[in-house]
Amino acid sequence: MTDLAADASPTTDTAPPAPVLVVIDRARAGARGDGPGWHLADAAEPTVNVVDLGVTRGDGIFEAFGVVDGAVQALEPHLNRLARSAALLDLPVLDLDLIREAVLASAAAHAPVPFALTKLIVTRGLEGVPDSEPTAWARTEVFEDHAVERRDGIRVVALDRGYRHDVATTSPWLLQGAKTLSYAVNKSVLREAARRGADDVLFVSSDGYALEGPSASLVARFGDRFVTPRTDQGILEGTTQAAVFDALADLGHETAYELLPLTRVHEADALWLLSSGRQIAPVSDLDGRSFAIDHELTTTLVEALWARRT
Amino acid sequence: MTDLAADASPTTDTAPPAPVLVVIDRARAGARGDGPGWHLADAAEPTVNVVDLGVTRGDGIFEAFGVVDGAVQALEPHLNRLARSAALLDLPVLDLDLIREAVLASAAAHAPVPFALTKLIVTRGLEGVPDSEPTAWARTEVFEDHAVERRDGIRVVALDRGYRHDVATTSPWLLQGAKTLSYAVNKSVLREAARRGADDVLFVSSDGYALEGPSASLVARFGDRFVTPRTDQGILEGTTQAAVFDALADLGHETAYELLPLTRVHEADALWLLSSGRQIAPVSDLDGRSFAIDHELTTTLVEALWARRT
Repeated sequence: MTDLAADASPTTDTAPPAPVLVVIDRARAGARGDGPGWHLADAAEPTVNVVDLGVTRGDGIFEAFGVVDGAVQALEPHLNRLARSAALLDLPVLDLDLIREAVLASAAAHAPVPFALTKLIVTRGLEGVPDSEPTAWARTEVFEDHAVERRDGIRVVALDRGYRHDVATTSPWLLQGAKTLSYAVNKSVLREAARRGADDVLFVSSDGYALEGPSASLVARFGDRFVTPRTDQGILEGTTQAAVFDALADLGHETAYELLPLTRVHEADALWLLSSGRQIAPVSDLDGRSFAIDHELTTTLVEALWARRT
Repeated sequence: MTDLAADASPTTDTAPPAPVLVVIDRARAGARGDGPGWHLADAAEPTVNVVDLGVTRGDGIFEAFGVVDGAVQALEPHLNRLARSAALLDLPVLDLDLIREAVLASAAAHAPVPFALTKLIVTRGLEGVPDSEPTAWARTEVFEDHAVERRDGIRVVALDRGYRHDVATTSPWLLQGAKTLSYAVNKSVLREAARRGADDVLFVSSDGYALEGPSASLVARFGDRFVTPRTDQGILEGTTQAAVFDALADLGHETAYELLPLTRVHEADALWLLSSGRQIAPVSDLDGRSFAIDHELTTTLVEALWARRT
């Protein structure tokens, strides 16, 4: 009977563990209320109102935390970046202590897996409700390892981001450099990449500078020197890129933040895209040009990334 | 006792009628299922999952239908624009007949009021769920009349949109011209306008052309000629602007779609911002320059707009 029951539900053993949803009741600093300020919720049930500004206007911010063997990585850099995004969007000052607790609680409540991702979202709250409190939650789910991409590399195309590289300085209301929920373009460019037979995208400013991927930072190797685009160009400070720069410095390599014209990226000796989920992906092809994959260095770096316990 | 009870709930009489939420069960053309394809839902209850791409990525589209004395205005132009937005975002082909029904049902179920707004939202569905059906709903609520703005005009500032005027042609993956849920910038610019003492915004391309407001079309009068920016510049075809152009033509005026440098807009005899909610708002000030308000023409046009029964 036991065997038959197992046969009748063949997916039971292979179904991934359920995602864990923690709803944050008081994301705003100084908000008062009873209880711990967050609670576990059923991830399968709807929890967002149709007038939440997160959905009606993409008016909110997010962070995605890599979780390796249960350890939430780059917790403080992600929280600091969240606070910077909140400031760029004129959101209320956030209670980072409570948000940190909620992120850790969400990751801790998840079944043990080698790789998970905790996504934290904070929206401006309800449209048409004066002084609405922000809506916020942290949700953890299994993240598939990307061993094939790490071995074979990914094919990337450069696509125009439409903005000049200095737009964050000249026109801060365009919110470049904030990690907002208005990411329709970040998804659209992946569909354009797929139409061109590529896996991912490198955004380029309208005046020709390499910026970042839609959800990753670029690192280019020129000899013994590793360069990432300067973050005053309306792009995000990469938490994984920062960890990789630390690892490269430990290995005795030189690292630098620079303006990188796309033409110069095309001449690099090697390229990687770095992000909290996939962590590190060597680029095998950019715009039809082949790039060598340094398997040894990529392995060394991914082991350094995975070894992080904070 | 009756009087006392009334005193105890002084807001009962003045509280606005409840919003009406219609959830669309099968927005995709050809989707099968039982029942009418939509159902009334409690607008106060959450109906959106935290992994809906509408909230995680602003990955969806919307339309806002003006409802005057119960009549949904510009129904077909809005539905046609929705279909164009869906195509620009590579969303599934939508069942416009069912969506039309849901919009009309939402407006019809609302308590009778002079002005309401029905907002229709369609998202790509659930993140991480292959072939997820789109999530969709129509929600109707009271819309406050803007008599003061119509009389006194609104103060507007021109703000850089960051993109060249031809970006929709050169870089269609930037989704300019689609009415997406990724509207954080459209809200951010209103906060920048408020900081500058203004009420609304006119977007300007990085190469100096007037485009549109964050939720309105621009019409500029030069003598007897009325001009709106050409819609091949990555801006929306204004449904209210089209109705105003019809009314102007009926009055014997010339209308035109043109490239309008901001410098030329500054020389106009009069300016209006047109939208489905506020319908028509004369501009009293743009970038610190005063503009005359033509009260008679504004009144004639708003009466034409309100008279629409489709």
